Amino acid sequence: MKLKEIGEFGFIKRISSQFNALLPEDILGIGDDCAVIPQGGSNLIVTTDMLVEDVHFLRSKISAFELGYKSLAVNLSDIAAMGGEPIASFISLALPADIDVDYMEEFYKGYNKLSAQHSVPLLGGDTTKSPDKLVINVAVLGKAKRPVLRSMAKPNQHICVTGPLGSSACGLHLVLNSLKGVDSLLSAHNMPVPRIQEGLLIGSAAGIGGMMDISDGMGSDMSHIIEHSGVGARIFLDKLPISEDCIATAGLYGLDPVELAVSGGEDYELLFTFDKEEFEHLAAEFKAEFGRDLYVIGETTESGKFEYMKDGLVVDRNLKGFNHF
Amino acid sequence: MKLKEIGEFGFIKRISSQFNALLPEDILGIGDDCAVIPQGGSNLIVTTDMLVEDVHFLRSKISAFELGYKSLAVNLSDIAAMGGEPIASFISLALPADIDVDYMEEFYKGYNKLSAQHSVPLLGGDTTKSPDKLVINVAVLGKAKRPVLRSMAKPNQHICVTGPLGSSACGLHLVLNSLKGVDSLLSAHNMPVPRIQEGLLIGSAAGIGGMMDISDGMGSDMSHIIEHSGVGARIFLDKLPISEDCIATAGLYGLDPVELAVSGGEDYELLFTFDKEEFEHLAAEFKAEFGRDLYVIGETTESGKFEYMKDGLVVDRNLKGFNHF
Repeated sequence: MKLKEIGEFGFIKRISSQFNALLPEDILGIGDDCAVIPQGGSNLIVTTDMLVEDVHFLRSKISAFELGYKSLAVNLSDIAAMGGEPIASFISLALPADIDVDYMEEFYKGYNKLSAQHSVPLLGGDTTKSPDKLVINVAVLGKAKRPVLRSMAKPNQHICVTGPLGSSACGLHLVLNSLKGVDSLLSAHNMPVPRIQEGLLIGSAAGIGGMMDISDGMGSDMSHIIEHSGVGARIFLDKLPISEDCIATAGLYGLDPVELAVSGGEDYELLFTFDKEEFEHLAAEFKAEFGRDLYVIGETTESGKFEYMKDGLVVDRNLKGFNHF
Repeated sequence: MKLKEIGEFGFIKRISSQFNALLPEDILGIGDDCAVIPQGGSNLIVTTDMLVEDVHFLRSKISAFELGYKSLAVNLSDIAAMGGEPIASFISLALPADIDVDYMEEFYKGYNKLSAQHSVPLLGGDTTKSPDKLVINVAVLGKAKRPVLRSMAKPNQHICVTGPLGSSACGLHLVLNSLKGVDSLLSAHNMPVPRIQEGLLIGSAAGIGGMMDISDGMGSDMSHIIEHSGVGARIFLDKLPISEDCIATAGLYGLDPVELAVSGGEDYELLFTFDKEEFEHLAAEFKAEFGRDLYVIGETTESGKFEYMKDGLVVDRNLKGFNHF
């Protein structure tokens, strides 16, 4: 049987059941943004992400500096999604022969820039050669007093995001087609900002439900939250925050900005559910702390169904996030 | 500048200095088998290793089961080298399109076999596609009350190993040349045994100096111990433990068994220095616990020099372990 027949998530389910027998009861294993290991009053959290040349990036389309930055960013974003703080990072690199010292120094400058911003030391790794493609694996160790899981959503909560959606996907379109673009879109794609401080504030607030970071696309990631939480979701398509740059650029190149926002992926904003009555307080605190707005894009329901709404009506869309196989 | 001009270790040195500013004083970062992070009376230790198809293994020459087993084994070996215990593992996989579900199930059976032996749950990872090569990255989190570093060797200690050297390299020769071989050699190469329990016993014994696991080859790994510890070393070539299977097979195919033992690599036995006056006690305890012998293969000196001895005389050999570039 080919892997693509059962898909990434089907494969993970199939495998993870093999390992459940080894899992102590208090440990959270495969299936959330991070694993959670209780450790004396707090919790260790661990995440790891692999970036493969020509699958996740094209070496000709992203600078070494940006690639270094992004390799760490996507992992820190998983830490943020648990409401956690990063402690340390580890990197493994498979390097093709045409990569030189200058390239790697630029790569590490980008990696180091983000490490310094969040005071996360690089503590180790592995460097080896590669027959052809550049492969990067980063693992991040963090801690979380009270980790926020994707299974914690309750019915009748707001569904919220920490920033605009679709910019990264719009940026990717520009990159792939070598189109002139707007810096905000290119940088949303090449240097996404992990929402560590935002995750700490939201994750520790009274009223928090479930949380994830948006990597595969809001639609796909929201479907994980409702599946793990046993709730339904209604997304208001006319409430999705989409930047002016994204709307203008999408218009220019015949793209649908709502499609980009729903299934584009790699936004690395936080997607979370939150008690409606507590939300105003959170939004005010968030605005005071970060000078930005939180966006309510939908609500959880008891139905178990995932619905997209427009002008108060359910619309028939079959939008899905990126499936890796 | 090409990476091979400065080599793997030169490159790591160059990069690691960039990150030192972020390193809290009590944390041990890049440069040992594991990173060490003090955590309430004990220490977290972390290691990660990447295996790349056609660099570290040939898919046609190792079974999926063996490859799964070995991917975890080489990481557990780094935990053993610190005198630590593994807590959890994490795996990232880049899978080419021709890898199917059956292959991955066999892979995970091998991985799981070793996980179960050491009660190390697999807690997470990342699965993605690969344009061509199979790439595996494993990270292991462990703990160590008193981590044994490669910098802890003192002059005038015994240099010891936990088992025979060269079998894995001899097995590799058989594998690469599709030669008929002896099971013990093939299995030394394809399913190396991480010396976790051995490392715990040795690492906690009075008299322990520095320790590493032998991955690049005894000669290369010993040179790291002396460099980090500021001591010298004398290796007695006629004292190297080499299995009868290895000697016989080397003879058959025109290989030098001593060369295999010094620079073959991938033995995954523990290499450590130990106070001479305490050694007999350790060896007896080791024998009682594991039913096997420890081997004294040399001694540390104050000279700072790395010397190979035969029949009491220094021999001029320029044997080096495998350099990844």
